[in-house]
Amino acid sequence: MTTTRAEPQPADFADVRTTNLAVVLRHLRTHGPSSRAAIAATTGLTKATVSSLAGDLIGHRLLRETGLSGNRIGRPATVLALDGTAYASIGIQVADGQLSALALDYSGERLLLWHRALDGRRETSEIVALAQRAASRVRQQGRHLLGLTIAASPPSEELRSAVAGSLRQKDLVITVAQHAALAAVAEHRHGGHLAADLAYVSGATSLEAGLILEGRLLRGGPLGRFTLGPPGTPTLQDHAGIEPLIRRALPDFDPEALADPGPAVEQVAIRARAGDAVATKALEHTAGYLGQGLAVLTNLVSPEVIVLGDHYATLAEWLIPGAERFTTARLTASTLGLHAAALGGAVSHLDHVDTGRIPRPVD
Amino acid sequence: MTTTRAEPQPADFADVRTTNLAVVLRHLRTHGPSSRAAIAATTGLTKATVSSLAGDLIGHRLLRETGLSGNRIGRPATVLALDGTAYASIGIQVADGQLSALALDYSGERLLLWHRALDGRRETSEIVALAQRAASRVRQQGRHLLGLTIAASPPSEELRSAVAGSLRQKDLVITVAQHAALAAVAEHRHGGHLAADLAYVSGATSLEAGLILEGRLLRGGPLGRFTLGPPGTPTLQDHAGIEPLIRRALPDFDPEALADPGPAVEQVAIRARAGDAVATKALEHTAGYLGQGLAVLTNLVSPEVIVLGDHYATLAEWLIPGAERFTTARLTASTLGLHAAALGGAVSHLDHVDTGRIPRPVD
Repeated sequence: MTTTRAEPQPADFADVRTTNLAVVLRHLRTHGPSSRAAIAATTGLTKATVSSLAGDLIGHRLLRETGLSGNRIGRPATVLALDGTAYASIGIQVADGQLSALALDYSGERLLLWHRALDGRRETSEIVALAQRAASRVRQQGRHLLGLTIAASPPSEELRSAVAGSLRQKDLVITVAQHAALAAVAEHRHGGHLAADLAYVSGATSLEAGLILEGRLLRGGPLGRFTLGPPGTPTLQDHAGIEPLIRRALPDFDPEALADPGPAVEQVAIRARAGDAVATKALEHTAGYLGQGLAVLTNLVSPEVIVLGDHYATLAEWLIPGAERFTTARLTASTLGLHAAALGGAVSHLDHVDTGRIPRPVD
Repeated sequence: MTTTRAEPQPADFADVRTTNLAVVLRHLRTHGPSSRAAIAATTGLTKATVSSLAGDLIGHRLLRETGLSGNRIGRPATVLALDGTAYASIGIQVADGQLSALALDYSGERLLLWHRALDGRRETSEIVALAQRAASRVRQQGRHLLGLTIAASPPSEELRSAVAGSLRQKDLVITVAQHAALAAVAEHRHGGHLAADLAYVSGATSLEAGLILEGRLLRGGPLGRFTLGPPGTPTLQDHAGIEPLIRRALPDFDPEALADPGPAVEQVAIRARAGDAVATKALEHTAGYLGQGLAVLTNLVSPEVIVLGDHYATLAEWLIPGAERFTTARLTASTLGLHAAALGGAVSHLDHVDTGRIPRPVD
């Protein structure tokens, strides 16, 4: 996007309303079900304003009333919660020979999580088919689909178009984004890291970084391409990538089996735990170079937390000790499993509604 | 800063007013003197709102009326402009054995620019003395000082405290920040790059990157520390830094003279222009490695523009051809001279007022 220096947009009463709708939605997203009085007390809005905003959100089926609060002082109050019945969002992840689909309702409850092996020869048609099946499922449940995001590296506009063409819904937002960037979104929301600036380092087929800055700005890309030297000098990916690690740690392993590195990574962990010298040395090599990649992230954007994700998470007990001295960030392993990017894709559409942009279905 | 996921703050009418004050100030900052009607037409605010906002800003001496517009349709209208008479801001830069001070009035006019050689043995006292002298000068001119920022790498809290202790003014904001980050602020505002995402790469004593993202978020740090290999492997700084370049390009040069590399950099340019093979080869080496540093920036944050600054700007005609193939960003040389970081420091305090935070002097 090229633009002149961003000029602020004039504000009016509609902006105030949007901001305050966001305040109520984000309060419930963060704190869980709450009474109108509790929302007013925490956010600084008046009770009358909270009641008016809640009425609007209930009318749009984003909130629901869930019975009475159990607080013992004064009269019991009706409790508000995010309503999961009307809307859903889908994330699709394409990585490491695996295809995953994950759907959330608006309250953040998981509606489905599917995995299947990906046949590289007919990738696009398989992705389109899975997207269609997931969309059908949430619609059969009576939910309106807010959006669908595909995590792929590199993100492909052709893939986006193919999926968009197959899911005919006028107001449906379909996006593609980089694997690690979406995984960073998921970690920021669901990882429990309590950090506004977070980096996710993906040990999937390619070594990528996803960045969340100030709790919302999203960046990232192929960290593994770093190199310093004449043409042909090994890259960070060559030194610290998952595939090179497997080749070093398991010299007897069939390289054909690497389309999905999952089983090989488990084998590396088993051998390292058993004290195998080759596997241990390979992990030390990987950890040292991974640390040099983390140093670059730290020097440029100073994240508070760096999350090792995908297959790096499986090997974190060996990688963190060797890599942590290269960064001032807290270094930790993802606990979201091998579908963090799919989760981030689904979350991104809920986040958009949480900014106070109330969906108005057109179909 | 560690925080939970940022929760939006409730908005009220005061926020609307602040936003709209910012809209008017930023309009005038970007477009120059304009009539109330022209501001209304461009921003979408009503004429009555613009008149009310302008009255407020004139009362606070941030705007002034400057006679009649020359438009030929209808009655001539009074033109509004940013008022430089009441407020000023100072930036101080410490780099390459040089100390610079630059002051701007609120309209962005330069009030002073001083350079002096820095005696490394009594650095803090020299910086404090220069800050005091600059502050006295703008106050003698009847201007209230909004803030003072010191560009230094690394930024030092002791330095900030020393300056703050010497300039007794209750509402004076004094900050220290990294050289390249402040230079990026200056490039974003005054470099004419028309980019919301911009990186500044500093060829001062240390090789640093400053980042502006989405037109406001500021990050950056010591890019030159990047290395990939066992301990002792040369860093990006060793390959592409200004001092190593001078040593390679001018093998006959007295290393003692490098406290201020300016004259040596000029000599490299003179020899390269004359076709000197040693200088040319050194520049090619630097350009290739610098390009690998730019690739890192590009892969992680995808800036639209990368500005080569400080001494790199002097050598840009040799560096850009060798480095540009490593990045998809527009690669360009700074035209702001060797005091971009001081300018960015001064600009940052004007930017703060431009967000609608009207200063209320307390002394």
